[in-house]
Amino acid sequence: MGLKQLGKAAPLPPSPDEAVLERVSNLHADTDYVARFTAPEFTCLCPVTGQPDFAHFVVDYAPGKWLLESKSFKLFLGSFRNTASFHEDTTLRIGKSIATLIEPRWLRIGGYWFPRGGIPIDVFWQHGTPPDGIWIPDQGVAPYRGRG
Amino acid sequence: MGLKQLGKAAPLPPSPDEAVLERVSNLHADTDYVARFTAPEFTCLCPVTGQPDFAHFVVDYAPGKWLLESKSFKLFLGSFRNTASFHEDTTLRIGKSIATLIEPRWLRIGGYWFPRGGIPIDVFWQHGTPPDGIWIPDQGVAPYRGRG
Amino acid sequence: MGLKQLGKAAPLPPSPDEAVLERVSNLHADTDYVARFTAPEFTCLCPVTGQPDFAHFVVDYAPGKWLLESKSFKLFLGSFRNTASFHEDTTLRIGKSIATLIEPRWLRIGGYWFPRGGIPIDVFWQHGTPPDGIWIPDQGVAPYRGRG
Amino acid sequence: MGLKQLGKAAPLPPSPDEAVLERVSNLHADTDYVARFTAPEFTCLCPVTGQPDFAHFVVDYAPGKWLLESKSFKLFLGSFRNTASFHEDTTLRIGKSIATLIEPRWLRIGGYWFPRGGIPIDVFWQHGTPPDGIWIPDQGVAPYRGRG
Amino acid sequence: MGLKQLGKAAPLPPSPDEAVLERVSNLHADTDYVARFTAPEFTCLCPVTGQPDFAHFVVDYAPGKWLLESKSFKLFLGSFRNTASFHEDTTLRIGKSIATLIEPRWLRIGGYWFPRGGIPIDVFWQHGTPPDGIWIPDQGVAPYRGRG
Amino acid sequence: MGLKQLGKAAPLPPSPDEAVLERVSNLHADTDYVARFTAPEFTCLCPVTGQPDFAHFVVDYAPGKWLLESKSFKLFLGSFRNTASFHEDTTLRIGKSIATLIEPRWLRIGGYWFPRGGIPIDVFWQHGTPPDGIWIPDQGVAPYRGRG
Amino acid sequence: MGLKQLGKAAPLPPSPDEAVLERVSNLHADTDYVARFTAPEFTCLCPVTGQPDFAHFVVDYAPGKWLLESKSFKLFLGSFRNTASFHEDTTLRIGKSIATLIEPRWLRIGGYWFPRGGIPIDVFWQHGTPPDGIWIPDQGVAPYRGRG
Amino acid sequence: MGLKQLGKAAPLPPSPDEAVLERVSNLHADTDYVARFTAPEFTCLCPVTGQPDFAHFVVDYAPGKWLLESKSFKLFLGSFRNTASFHEDTTLRIGKSIATLIEPRWLRIGGYWFPRGGIPIDVFWQHGTPPDGIWIPDQGVAPYRGRG
Amino acid sequence: MGLKQLGKAAPLPPSPDEAVLERVSNLHADTDYVARFTAPEFTCLCPVTGQPDFAHFVVDYAPGKWLLESKSFKLFLGSFRNTASFHEDTTLRIGKSIATLIEPRWLRIGGYWFPRGGIPIDVFWQHGTPPDGIWIPDQGVAPYRGRG
Amino acid sequence: MGLKQLGKAAPLPPSPDEAVLERVSNLHADTDYVARFTAPEFTCLCPVTGQPDFAHFVVDYAPGKWLLESKSFKLFLGSFRNTASFHEDTTLRIGKSIATLIEPRWLRIGGYWFPRGGIPIDVFWQHGTPPDGIWIPDQGVAPYRGRG
Ligand SMILES: [Ca+2]
Ligand SMILES: [Ca+2]
Ligand SMILES: [Ca+2]
Ligand SMILES: [Ca+2]
Ligand SMILES: [Ca+2]
Ligand SMILES: [Ca+2]
Ligand SMILES: [Ca+2]
Ligand SMILES: [Ca+2]
Ligand SMILES: [Ca+2]
Ligand SMILES: [Ca+2]
Ligand SMILES: [Ca+2]
Ligand SMILES: [Ca+2]
Ligand SMILES: [Ca+2]
Ligand SMILES: [Ca+2]
Ligand SMILES: [Ca+2]
Ligand SMILES: [Ca+2]
Repeated sequence: MGLKQLGKAAPLPPSPDEAVLERVSNLHADTDYVARFTAPEFTCLCPVTGQPDFAHFVVDYAPGKWLLESKSFKLFLGSFRNTASFHEDTTLRIGKSIATLIEPRWLRIGGYWFPRGGIPIDVFWQHGTPPDGIWIPDQGVAPYRGRG
Repeated sequence: MGLKQLGKAAPLPPSPDEAVLERVSNLHADTDYVARFTAPEFTCLCPVTGQPDFAHFVVDYAPGKWLLESKSFKLFLGSFRNTASFHEDTTLRIGKSIATLIEPRWLRIGGYWFPRGGIPIDVFWQHGTPPDGIWIPDQGVAPYRGRG
Repeated sequence: MGLKQLGKAAPLPPSPDEAVLERVSNLHADTDYVARFTAPEFTCLCPVTGQPDFAHFVVDYAPGKWLLESKSFKLFLGSFRNTASFHEDTTLRIGKSIATLIEPRWLRIGGYWFPRGGIPIDVFWQHGTPPDGIWIPDQGVAPYRGRG
Repeated sequence: MGLKQLGKAAPLPPSPDEAVLERVSNLHADTDYVARFTAPEFTCLCPVTGQPDFAHFVVDYAPGKWLLESKSFKLFLGSFRNTASFHEDTTLRIGKSIATLIEPRWLRIGGYWFPRGGIPIDVFWQHGTPPDGIWIPDQGVAPYRGRG
Repeated sequence: MGLKQLGKAAPLPPSPDEAVLERVSNLHADTDYVARFTAPEFTCLCPVTGQPDFAHFVVDYAPGKWLLESKSFKLFLGSFRNTASFHEDTTLRIGKSIATLIEPRWLRIGGYWFPRGGIPIDVFWQHGTPPDGIWIPDQGVAPYRGRG
Repeated sequence: MGLKQLGKAAPLPPSPDEAVLERVSNLHADTDYVARFTAPEFTCLCPVTGQPDFAHFVVDYAPGKWLLESKSFKLFLGSFRNTASFHEDTTLRIGKSIATLIEPRWLRIGGYWFPRGGIPIDVFWQHGTPPDGIWIPDQGVAPYRGRG
Repeated sequence: MGLKQLGKAAPLPPSPDEAVLERVSNLHADTDYVARFTAPEFTCLCPVTGQPDFAHFVVDYAPGKWLLESKSFKLFLGSFRNTASFHEDTTLRIGKSIATLIEPRWLRIGGYWFPRGGIPIDVFWQHGTPPDGIWIPDQGVAPYRGRG
Repeated sequence: MGLKQLGKAAPLPPSPDEAVLERVSNLHADTDYVARFTAPEFTCLCPVTGQPDFAHFVVDYAPGKWLLESKSFKLFLGSFRNTASFHEDTTLRIGKSIATLIEPRWLRIGGYWFPRGGIPIDVFWQHGTPPDGIWIPDQGVAPYRGRG
Repeated sequence: MGLKQLGKAAPLPPSPDEAVLERVSNLHADTDYVARFTAPEFTCLCPVTGQPDFAHFVVDYAPGKWLLESKSFKLFLGSFRNTASFHEDTTLRIGKSIATLIEPRWLRIGGYWFPRGGIPIDVFWQHGTPPDGIWIPDQGVAPYRGRG
Repeated sequence: MGLKQLGKAAPLPPSPDEAVLERVSNLHADTDYVARFTAPEFTCLCPVTGQPDFAHFVVDYAPGKWLLESKSFKLFLGSFRNTASFHEDTTLRIGKSIATLIEPRWLRIGGYWFPRGGIPIDVFWQHGTPPDGIWIPDQGVAPYRGRG
């Protein structure tokens, strides 16, 4: 499949620009279905303070010709480690990068960010129209409750 | 960006009228998406008894040209600390203040108030029509259960 | 506002017929929104056995000109304490009493009754059509699970 | 009301054919609403092995002229105690028996069976079309999770 | 057994003084074990305001010669319906009444009261020393969480 | 092992007296450990009304020379199907039957019964002293919560 | 019914190709309803590393002339034990195998895979259009949360 | 009882020093038991930034001659509204104020503070030794989980 | 460290006898602490039927000179894939294999098995005495609840 | 107090060696109590693969003369961002660093690491003996459950 990172020693890319998100052929390209990736391990930097930010991401998509390759996705997420950007922008950048690469019939991303100033921000984006007849469960991530 | 409070010493405004809710440019103004702010730390005063009231707020909106600036939102909420008003009114006032400032494509606010007389009141308002094709998860706040 | 019970010594009315459910002006009568009252403290009597019955109520409504006054609602619920009626009837009576008084754009009531003979009964009624564009979260009351 | 079992000594009927499911008049027959019965205590026999099977049932219906009488329902469920049949068949038989008797505007039944061979079967049936404007909450029964 | 209420028409006693809590012989009086009664349906009146109060009770005890008779316990709890007393006093009165009647080797009662002024009170009392070697699980009642 | 029921067609025994609870050799008889059996499928009859009762059982024991044979335990529980007895008695009878057969170093049983009259009864018994150094997790069965 | 595996000694098939998924007549073929099978015990092999993979499956379908026979389904799932394939492919293969055999009016499968590289993948596929008027509850499988 | 605030118009005291925490006689002073107050509505100010802080408090105590009067406790907590102090200090100040006033046999306080800098602080203090033979359930407040 | 499997292509060992559980030096051998491994992915075969069994394991230990090497532990668990043995025996075999290799100051294992015949078995074993002063949280695995 | 980081621009330290964990005076040094810090935002690097690792930490301690300064603790945790070490070592290093600086009467740390190879590792360490009479609630972090 010509994958550059799967099954090889793959160092963490230093930035999203240097990361290589990869795709593999979808064996069921004639079928409408949904794949969900849940990524609770994400960190980047705050563009204002330079301090670490953390988020939990869930990506749902209906594949066309391509599937998102899982290891490259993990490395792509890891490449944000030293990158500074706002929550809304980071979430959409991740979603759009995947959409550009794999040309899904439909895709959505939920970014669930840890609280700052006592107030967490979540970002929800979807791209394209769900193909007629697919089934998309709720992401069901627990709401933030503070304490008590 | 000319923000008045971000990155500066920002004292708690004495009232909502004196608070300055601020906005920043939306880098993805050509994209329909949703941002959620969850604010479990809110208090104001009861207009009948003068005693403190408490609430948990969740705001969802689809940004147009502007994003809600997070620190000013925190200070705006804090500015109700010495203000007396009814639950329904306070919830709508917060929602309408944000809507007026950032002119979102769509916005909703859920106000989940602590019980008085054994009966909590929740207030749910939305403004505008969700843009075609956006995705809006449930707020999922736990229902009040009393005891047992 | 001419309220008869708010801010006064208000004894428990001896029956629903003697209770006075009250209303106050809706400051946002030009706005479609929803208010939820959650009342986990309710008891009446079984018309067959005379034994106490207990229920948990959740009322959602879209106010028109009037809001339901909270203290009178609490007293109204308390007035069923010595009244005997069936679960279905009691739930609808409460819902219809509120609807008649406050003429909401829409209203619904969920009555979640404690089990009798090992089988709880829940009653769900709604009145009118939700105004276009309002947002109504699930009531989300936990299903009865028995044991284990 | 001429009920045969309510308020009397009512032995467990030996089989569903000998059980008498009863109905009472619906005082709100001009109103569309929903009643839910949750029955976590059910057992019958496996037609293949003769061993006991267990299930948790939830019945929702929109009453027409009649309500399901609760005690006769409990006895009807109990009458399956020595009856052998498959999960799908038992669930539909219960649902159809109620529907035939009380002629609801709409009815649904969820049968949540305990696992056999590590795999539980659930059966979901509904009958008729929900009347326009009624409100039907999810049954919300916990999914089977195995262990861990 | 000479029980006065079990298997008979038993009206709700008008007050705890007129209620008759009953006991039956413990068939396993030579064995140390624990019985737990969970009573989520309880109401009395507030001695200050005359308004209804609600509580959820859990009673654990290690029987000696006697078991608490369940139907009389239900009627005893119901007899508080028109009685006014403070949470601490009511909880201990119930616990002590049972202890006096059935002379358990050990007994405890948890009273979990609904909030007043936003603050619920729980009362925990135990009587006697658990017999050596008995096993007493936690009552595990959910803590009060307010909202959010 | 001379087991009478394992791997054979084993009809449900008509009563506990006719059931044969079996044991197998403990391969680790020189080791102190605990085995837990969780049995959420149990029914018997109420000795007063003849109506079905249901319970959820959890048995923990520290085996000596013998292990409880699982299929015979299932059949033993099933044999109570047409037997009438009180909750306290049934729970202890099951526990004592196992203890007599397998002579464990220690055993406990929790019987979690479905509510009658709105009040469930749980029964907790243990037998013997836990061997020094064994580890016994809580049974962790959810407390009864009524509704809401 | 000519079933090859039910009620007989049925060894685990060595591969899905050698497994025989079976069907039985649907006694309610004139009725639209849904059956759900929940299978938390599934394992196969990773085609890249040869290491075991694990998944939790939930299958919902609206039967036509045939029901899925439960024991053959269990054996079919077990037959993947030594088979290597990707998550997306395995999930669709299982769903399509059932659909081909039983010709349901509609079917869906959710495959909830355990995390690899910290990121679990879920796969959701449905086949056909739900018959008008059937009721399909959410699968409600808990989202992956990582730790904390 | 000479209470200064119960049953009267009681304005919020401007500071803890001006608040009057009150006590009432314990009717069961010869009995060892525990009372729990759960207070999810608390706010004060951060001594460093002047911004609002929020906390959830749970107080358990074994009363001696006195009970904590509930309304004065609510007002006492409210009096911290414009007071600045550190989490550890505020929690202990509240606990010690109660202990000094009511001279309990034993007391403990858990202060569960909302996160600052992504890290919430909890403070746990107890005073005196629990009287022999009292029963003290866990406070069971949910741990902070961040997101996901 | 001479590890045979870490950082290398490591095929699944065909049986526990051929698996090589490995150890690494404990850098904090002079310190008493606890490490917990949670392994929800485990399968073996039933010695009676040859069908797959599944379990969820949690291992806690206080290391002495050695730590359990994580990858070899994963492979060791995987090596049971084609091995037949009883739940009690398998759980203790795993625990004892680890104890023999790493000579911990103390170790315990909880094996949480999926239900067979409607009844899951859990096995709890510990080895040695916890060093004075270590801290061992509950394993907290959810109890089996059947359905509803 | 001479703090170097509180209330100042404080860049993320490049390594733990360069981070400065700070302490402040304990105003209640004559009192035994416990402070808990919960830190769900932590990442470091895997010493074998160089890939990011994530953990959730909870630290409990009984302060002596000093309190842990919260902002320096946040920066100290952040300083591990580019540091590679094993889970057991990192957890103990954090715990010991705090203990050395603030000389608590007692301290414990729980490190809850995200799964690798499907198996998460938790590390629990405590230091010193809890002072007589302090109260230490469970950390109550949810156990890892895999899927389903
Ligand atoms: Ca399609
Ligand atoms: Ca809260
Ligand atoms: Ca659009
Ligand atoms: Ca409208
Ligand atoms: Ca159950
Ligand atoms: Ca209608
Ligand atoms: Ca004893
Ligand atoms: Ca021993
Ligand atoms: Ca309740
Ligand atoms: Ca149809
Ligand atoms: Ca004492
Ligand atoms: Ca998390
Ligand atoms: Ca030690
Ligand atoms: Ca001390
Ligand atoms: Ca001590
Ligand atoms: Ca699982």
